[in-house]
Amino acid sequence: MKYGEKEIQCAKLEFWPNPKKKDYTVEIIFPEFTCLCPRSGYPDFATIRISYAPNKTVVELKSLKLYLNSFRDKHISHEAAANQIYDDIVKELKPKNMELTAEFNARGGIKTNVYVKSHS
Amino acid sequence: MKYGEKEIQCAKLEFWPNPKKKDYTVEIIFPEFTCLCPRSGYPDFATIRISYAPNKTVVELKSLKLYLNSFRDKHISHEAAANQIYDDIVKELKPKNMELTAEFNARGGIKTNVYVKSHS
Amino acid sequence: MKYGEKEIQCAKLEFWPNPKKKDYTVEIIFPEFTCLCPRSGYPDFATIRISYAPNKTVVELKSLKLYLNSFRDKHISHEAAANQIYDDIVKELKPKNMELTAEFNARGGIKTNVYVKSHS
Amino acid sequence: MKYGEKEIQCAKLEFWPNPKKKDYTVEIIFPEFTCLCPRSGYPDFATIRISYAPNKTVVELKSLKLYLNSFRDKHISHEAAANQIYDDIVKELKPKNMELTAEFNARGGIKTNVYVKSHS
Amino acid sequence: MKYGEKEIQCAKLEFWPNPKKKDYTVEIIFPEFTCLCPRSGYPDFATIRISYAPNKTVVELKSLKLYLNSFRDKHISHEAAANQIYDDIVKELKPKNMELTAEFNARGGIKTNVYVKSHS
Amino acid sequence: MKYGEKEIQCAKLEFWPNPKKKDYTVEIIFPEFTCLCPRSGYPDFATIRISYAPNKTVVELKSLKLYLNSFRDKHISHEAAANQIYDDIVKELKPKNMELTAEFNARGGIKTNVYVKSHS
Amino acid sequence: MKYGEKEIQCAKLEFWPNPKKKDYTVEIIFPEFTCLCPRSGYPDFATIRISYAPNKTVVELKSLKLYLNSFRDKHISHEAAANQIYDDIVKELKPKNMELTAEFNARGGIKTNVYVKSHS
Amino acid sequence: MKYGEKEIQCAKLEFWPNPKKKDYTVEIIFPEFTCLCPRSGYPDFATIRISYAPNKTVVELKSLKLYLNSFRDKHISHEAAANQIYDDIVKELKPKNMELTAEFNARGGIKTNVYVKSHS
Amino acid sequence: MKYGEKEIQCAKLEFWPNPKKKDYTVEIIFPEFTCLCPRSGYPDFATIRISYAPNKTVVELKSLKLYLNSFRDKHISHEAAANQIYDDIVKELKPKNMELTAEFNARGGIKTNVYVKSHS
Amino acid sequence: MKYGEKEIQCAKLEFWPNPKKKDYTVEIIFPEFTCLCPRSGYPDFATIRISYAPNKTVVELKSLKLYLNSFRDKHISHEAAANQIYDDIVKELKPKNMELTAEFNARGGIKTNVYVKSHS
Repeated sequence: MKYGEKEIQCAKLEFWPNPKKKDYTVEIIFPEFTCLCPRSGYPDFATIRISYAPNKTVVELKSLKLYLNSFRDKHISHEAAANQIYDDIVKELKPKNMELTAEFNARGGIKTNVYVKSHS
Repeated sequence: MKYGEKEIQCAKLEFWPNPKKKDYTVEIIFPEFTCLCPRSGYPDFATIRISYAPNKTVVELKSLKLYLNSFRDKHISHEAAANQIYDDIVKELKPKNMELTAEFNARGGIKTNVYVKSHS
Repeated sequence: MKYGEKEIQCAKLEFWPNPKKKDYTVEIIFPEFTCLCPRSGYPDFATIRISYAPNKTVVELKSLKLYLNSFRDKHISHEAAANQIYDDIVKELKPKNMELTAEFNARGGIKTNVYVKSHS
Repeated sequence: MKYGEKEIQCAKLEFWPNPKKKDYTVEIIFPEFTCLCPRSGYPDFATIRISYAPNKTVVELKSLKLYLNSFRDKHISHEAAANQIYDDIVKELKPKNMELTAEFNARGGIKTNVYVKSHS
Repeated sequence: MKYGEKEIQCAKLEFWPNPKKKDYTVEIIFPEFTCLCPRSGYPDFATIRISYAPNKTVVELKSLKLYLNSFRDKHISHEAAANQIYDDIVKELKPKNMELTAEFNARGGIKTNVYVKSHS
Repeated sequence: MKYGEKEIQCAKLEFWPNPKKKDYTVEIIFPEFTCLCPRSGYPDFATIRISYAPNKTVVELKSLKLYLNSFRDKHISHEAAANQIYDDIVKELKPKNMELTAEFNARGGIKTNVYVKSHS
Repeated sequence: MKYGEKEIQCAKLEFWPNPKKKDYTVEIIFPEFTCLCPRSGYPDFATIRISYAPNKTVVELKSLKLYLNSFRDKHISHEAAANQIYDDIVKELKPKNMELTAEFNARGGIKTNVYVKSHS
Repeated sequence: MKYGEKEIQCAKLEFWPNPKKKDYTVEIIFPEFTCLCPRSGYPDFATIRISYAPNKTVVELKSLKLYLNSFRDKHISHEAAANQIYDDIVKELKPKNMELTAEFNARGGIKTNVYVKSHS
Repeated sequence: MKYGEKEIQCAKLEFWPNPKKKDYTVEIIFPEFTCLCPRSGYPDFATIRISYAPNKTVVELKSLKLYLNSFRDKHISHEAAANQIYDDIVKELKPKNMELTAEFNARGGIKTNVYVKSHS
Repeated sequence: MKYGEKEIQCAKLEFWPNPKKKDYTVEIIFPEFTCLCPRSGYPDFATIRISYAPNKTVVELKSLKLYLNSFRDKHISHEAAANQIYDDIVKELKPKNMELTAEFNARGGIKTNVYVKSHS
């Protein structure tokens, strides 16, 4: 399998039925996110943390990994990447609530983290 | 002693009378939880943290250990394991409140934690 | 000096007048608590943390140390030890409020912490 | 390029349109801040942390770095540096809210941190 | 310069005008505090942390260091030292609010921290 | 797939041709080793570290993982497990040299590490 | 079981046949050693580390734990405890070589470690 | 700039004259290496450490970064990647001696490090 | 007890007979050393580590503590303090060998360690 | 005092007589070194560690600090800075032996350390 143009349109997320009705929280930590800087073209690296309270479905982990891997060849800013991942997941998962953190490696001596969460 | 079919129905939890009427909290940390992935069949590993305010009884630790060990040969997902342990204990212990965290080792570069707590 | 039967009735706590009227907090950390497991007879080890807002008196530290050392030959459970220390001190110190944490070393792969605090 | 008198008037901050309307937070960590002590003339070093919720614009990172680098030859106190950076950014960025922390290296065995945030 | 009797009456704190009207916080960490135990005469060691919101003045750091150094030959208990430093600074600085922590090194296997803060 | 009797005879290790003639070292760290205590029947857990200089072949990682997983239902002591893994790999890999460390989790308050290496 | 006079003569060490002829090393770490100070009568605490190359026998761990626990009521100095444990084990185990470290908790602000090893 | 086929032939390393005749060592740490697994096609991540004693030239850092970045789309094993980087640099740099470490992120619960150094 | 002029001539070290003839090592760590800077008069702080192989005697710890405490009012440089402590102890203890490390807290942003050991 | 052209010729190192004839080692750690990149003009930051065995003189610390501070406005590469500092000190100090390490902050995701030591 090779990362090509299709992934630039992003691998498809898959969802499973949530086996429980009660409130609980799933936290997913992915330390191997990489995309490309829209200005310099150089690789950027980040740890993505997603924490959500499932509603009717839960995220299937392998499809999430492929979805996150499909940013590997995208030219996208820190703020845009964090917000796009957040919006793509929320749109289909429809969780009770969700938070996302993207912690990017330092560039030019400056480290940037982006925090996105649901309006309450 | 060998882990076999009986344990798959789960070792029986035992309880002791709570010697105190006042509110206090017991936290139990078990870093040696292991079960089997329902898809790949491979072993999964987790640290289970349970924190509860005892009501009329407290959990007997050795029976808790045997109960948790009895997942060793079960094929069960991260979310299902965390919720089943939570529900099994709450059903018999009837604590004033209880929280459970299951922190699973990374698989495919993704680490998953599951948090369950009582509705207040 | 030898640890014998008298200490099993617990060394006597001593108190000093509180030199200040204003609210403040004293935290005491004792990482060298040891008692005996009531089932196996084996030694147990814990760190005891006590945090209180003094009222008319403060705990004299040497008497506190001797009091805690006098559990060395007692057969007592984790929950009972934490609650007895809490109750013994509160009864005589009468603090504005107090919290106690007993963090026991792991036994059989399970670590137990007990948290006791005043009803507010 | 050489750091000279112009920078003492501070490099110009640049801003980009905020691509998202929803609330989110950007945190920027710059561990390489240095200025000069107004009394001794010796170099001071600090880590600057800025956390803000963007309104209509976001800070362009390279201009922020050049702005922070332009304190290299300034004689300025810890409190004044933290407050000037805070005020300069808020004035042009007009964020929904913002916090700044300046953690200076110890001098004479004393470490100083300055925390500035918006009035709510 | 030698530490003698005058310092036992405590070096004089100095204050500077606060250059800003807005709310902000200054945190000062001094890991080299030492005094003498009133009972044993042996040296005690502590880290002093002071965090305050300046009103009309800020503490001048060198005078604060000399003030803290002047406890070097004083026989004073943990609780008294923390409260005296707090009161001496508050009396002249008149901050909007202030917190002080004194973390003493362990003696006889017991570590003591004292926390003092303003009544709100 | 289920762990059963066949694995107790140990999954088969596979080897690949070494692509290089020059000396170099491969270190493999497996923190998820588990077997059963021959006395108590309870699970034991260890981190296995293997470091070797390849000769004509290198170990194929997936077969190594399956081989190590096949101890999951074996009753075997710490010393025997470390030595058997060492001998099984050396016998077929025939490395220029090899070291193995097995770091077992504490039992009864005692932690055991076993170190095996080639005679030089 | 209660710790009494018999243990002061030290629980008996047991040994098992060494299943392997080749050189390897067993390291045992016991962080729960406690004895009594011969001068003050107060408890002392230490971590004992033993590392040896087995000859014809290996140490049985449970008997080692009981042996080490039997110092609980002994009045013995740091140097004497480390050397007695070393000599008692070497005398019966007759290892190819052995090292012992006893790392005692600080007393009076002074931490003491004792290192004993075989003459080569 | 986009990562494409040319980089798969590897960006060209550049070298500068060594300004010093005496022996010294340069260590370069690159925590952002990524390539593709030749079996699964999934991304692999590693930290590359290179330490060498310069002879007539030193490596120019920006060309080294572009060279290492050009593995981003290569399907290559852990052992082959480490050895190719080592050989490519040694061939042109001709250092007095050189060591390379490639520390790959865990896959399937197994972490692999590869160490390559010059024959002495 | 008060620290006065007598201590400036240094408290007397005491020694005990070494109960063992075989080679072993005693390491003593004292993190609470303080003296006065000969230039500024300000306090200096250091951790002193002493490691020695006893000959006919061992150092009595309480006298060592009083000896080290007696530098509290001495004006002495880092190098002189480390060498004087080393020489004072060696002269009377006559160990088979001895090493001393003095790790001073940073002054003016510079941290200094001094290492002294026996000529072999 | 302002950093200007004179410092670019480097502040003058000063030396004191070595009070001891015996071999010992002085280690100096300066985490606040900064200079300018000869290509980009941007600031570089490093920790400088110097370890030497004094001969007839020792380095005076304040002059060393001023000497190191005088690189603040120099455009100099990592390798050249480390070697110049080493050579400048050795030339005048003439130590029995000396090592220097310069650990630079990462640039472009690459961290560089330079190690210089005496030929033996």
